[in-house]
Amino acid sequence: MMRAGPISLVVVMLTAPPLLAEPAAPPRTMAEVLAASVPADWRPLDPQNTLYLQLASGRVVIELAPAFAPGHVANLKTLVRQKYFDGLAVVRSQDNFVVQWGDAEGKRSLGEARATLPPEFTVSLRPDLPFTRLPDPDGYAPEVGFSQGFPAARDRVAGQAWLAHCYGMVGAGRGNEPESGNGSELYVVTGHAPRQLDRNIALVGRVVQGMELLSVLPRGTGPLGFYEQPSEHVPITSVRLAVDVPEAERVPLEVLRTDTATFAALVESRRNRRDDWYKVPAGYIDLCNVPLPARTAR
Amino acid sequence: MMRAGPISLVVVMLTAPPLLAEPAAPPRTMAEVLAASVPADWRPLDPQNTLYLQLASGRVVIELAPAFAPGHVANLKTLVRQKYFDGLAVVRSQDNFVVQWGDAEGKRSLGEARATLPPEFTVSLRPDLPFTRLPDPDGYAPEVGFSQGFPAARDRVAGQAWLAHCYGMVGAGRGNEPESGNGSELYVVTGHAPRQLDRNIALVGRVVQGMELLSVLPRGTGPLGFYEQPSEHVPITSVRLAVDVPEAERVPLEVLRTDTATFAALVESRRNRRDDWYKVPAGYIDLCNVPLPARTAR
Repeated sequence: MMRAGPISLVVVMLTAPPLLAEPAAPPRTMAEVLAASVPADWRPLDPQNTLYLQLASGRVVIELAPAFAPGHVANLKTLVRQKYFDGLAVVRSQDNFVVQWGDAEGKRSLGEARATLPPEFTVSLRPDLPFTRLPDPDGYAPEVGFSQGFPAARDRVAGQAWLAHCYGMVGAGRGNEPESGNGSELYVVTGHAPRQLDRNIALVGRVVQGMELLSVLPRGTGPLGFYEQPSEHVPITSVRLAVDVPEAERVPLEVLRTDTATFAALVESRRNRRDDWYKVPAGYIDLCNVPLPARTAR
Repeated sequence: MMRAGPISLVVVMLTAPPLLAEPAAPPRTMAEVLAASVPADWRPLDPQNTLYLQLASGRVVIELAPAFAPGHVANLKTLVRQKYFDGLAVVRSQDNFVVQWGDAEGKRSLGEARATLPPEFTVSLRPDLPFTRLPDPDGYAPEVGFSQGFPAARDRVAGQAWLAHCYGMVGAGRGNEPESGNGSELYVVTGHAPRQLDRNIALVGRVVQGMELLSVLPRGTGPLGFYEQPSEHVPITSVRLAVDVPEAERVPLEVLRTDTATFAALVESRRNRRDDWYKVPAGYIDLCNVPLPARTAR
């Protein structure tokens, strides 16, 4: 029974699509939606807002979200340009939760970077902040959707928007004081979306490529998944802003825009799976189950 | 900034709990709820319905769910007692989705076990099937909650209940034919809950201990996360039913019952986190974010 099992991505040509009252267009699989996409559906990562986290096992590419955490992103860039992270390590891997890296011993100088920052757990709604609403309800927020390619939420009554803790999202660790996050300790969600963290901590970006290098790191056996022995730490070779890397050494990634008809079709293809394997379409999709495709630029 | 970051489990004594209109009882952390639990809040795993999956890295303990998939569980036990899985391997690890094991080459005889089974994607509601409803709404089902310790959903209009694809749930892989799942290929959810699989495939149990041995397996680079080379396969030493293992070699695990006031208090402690770290309680919890504690029997 080779290749049986649950199917997450299937390339099937519907030679005879079933007649359905809705949607009006014939249902398409995600693969069909992507195959029909046009260049304008994609945007290249901005090298000014792209981080390369280099591990011995490979490179993790992170897109930063300055629209949602401008102070944290600026501080993080200051740290990166000081090569603050080079030689530090992943110090925590908690199963079904996060991996985290930083200065476990707290000995490294922050240099020009700030030690504390005003919290950026939410931002005020403003006209220049796009928001493509998901049609589906959400338990954690009045509305959820996508903003500039990131999973996000908003509360129009409170006049706030925030990024959502989906798999692969990157945040700035903090202590109990809201101002104690400064970007020198970063975590990445590696399990079921811990949405209870939303509005409690600043998310600064998303892993666009290389999640599989972080998600497989051995789980730490100490409290909260911290590694108990320094020998368990996973060394960070370097963290660089893409714009500071020679162009030939950059990863020419494009991500699917989230404000297009193509993206809306992709969401629908996942709300109701139409390939031969699925028997009961869900008729719903959780924010954190919406794929955010990336590809190498042609 | 040692041990800063997002907090998933914090042991904090609230020496001066804030006054709140609701809940009536003072808010408690999960650690406090568990510390106040009584023996009757826990139940031992039934050795007749507990599997030990032995890998070189350690033992994974799986609780079976015969109430939801009696045919699949019976067939799986038949396979296990024939030592069907011994020497087979984990053949698939797809990031943010599943790991899967079975007979990649399809050469091993099923022996007395059946090759096809009637689908058990849902079961009919019946009086002896307990269901502790979660107070929170869910996008994938009319009602969600817990049944015999498993995350579950039900539709009273349709008269059906089913297990939910949360992290750690174990299912029986199948091909496109609904009858093609027989328990000889099993998968475990290792990422954000793929709830779109609910009602499309038979779940047969849940990993109670040892998830971290499966979730860190290197991701396969083939389609659907299958390993491309046999050398990448992760060998299975053995799979045994606990009752067939000498008592001294069993793992004496207890799981928290999900039909008790203690469990209800645990859910509330996670719907609204009250420790010093959290600033904005969510007021909601997703079914798959509810912890299902296990402990070694005293």
